Amino acid sequence: MSPKESWFPGHLHALSEDECFELLASKSVGRVGFTDGRGPVVLPVTYVVHDGVVLFRTAPGNSLARHLGSGPAAFESDEADDYTQSGWSVLVRGPVTFVPGTSPDDEGPVPWPDNTRTLLVRITPETITGRRLLPG
Amino acid sequence: MSPKESWFPGHLHALSEDECFELLASKSVGRVGFTDGRGPVVLPVTYVVHDGVVLFRTAPGNSLARHLGSGPAAFESDEADDYTQSGWSVLVRGPVTFVPGTSPDDEGPVPWPDNTRTLLVRITPETITGRRLLPG
Repeated sequence: MSPKESWFPGHLHALSEDECFELLASKSVGRVGFTDGRGPVVLPVTYVVHDGVVLFRTAPGNSLARHLGSGPAAFESDEADDYTQSGWSVLVRGPVTFVPGTSPDDEGPVPWPDNTRTLLVRITPETITGRRLLPG
Repeated sequence: MSPKESWFPGHLHALSEDECFELLASKSVGRVGFTDGRGPVVLPVTYVVHDGVVLFRTAPGNSLARHLGSGPAAFESDEADDYTQSGWSVLVRGPVTFVPGTSPDDEGPVPWPDNTRTLLVRITPETITGRRLLPG
């Protein structure tokens, strides 16, 4: 179905914080938004939600790790259904903390790529907002 | 399957520009990364790739439109398979242009939400990079 064939545009509804956390916890891949010297960057990571914070791993010293520490970050997760043209998205905004003393054997998110991603990163939501798009 | 049960971590491979454009064109929902006064923001949009640029629509005057004009943006699309823990992602970085004189009846991406999204936005890739994660 081409998007042109959607006769009934959908309607956006704001999600409550509880709904945002519930949907966020239902997915395993999300996207981190940060800024490097050139501007905004968006990269996917596997993650978990634990005690109200977002946890993911990256490799120490890579671009994500080098630039995340210097300011707030965004974290986005979503789900979209092409057929019904509906879905939801959740956006977390807040400060980034590197969690010390963790190893890949600890609890927490396990990255899908190989095991160089030993740095555990926490994004603490200052705000969490989300929208659901209902089919038209 | 819990991520803990993946015994064979996958391997990341860089994608060529041609592969990036091909994969980017295969999806209809991606995510715009930009910066507002508080920091990075990541929001999903429906999009098309046309003549090597990314096109999407938003509503004139909303947060996306107000903040996109002031600098470079990021655009991300991805696909992930939870079962095989594999997938790909593509990241476009470049300047943003608002395309004048367009109406919802023109060619271009048709947003899934209702028809207030009359502003056509173009992101011209300065760089396009991508990675494929092969199953372990």
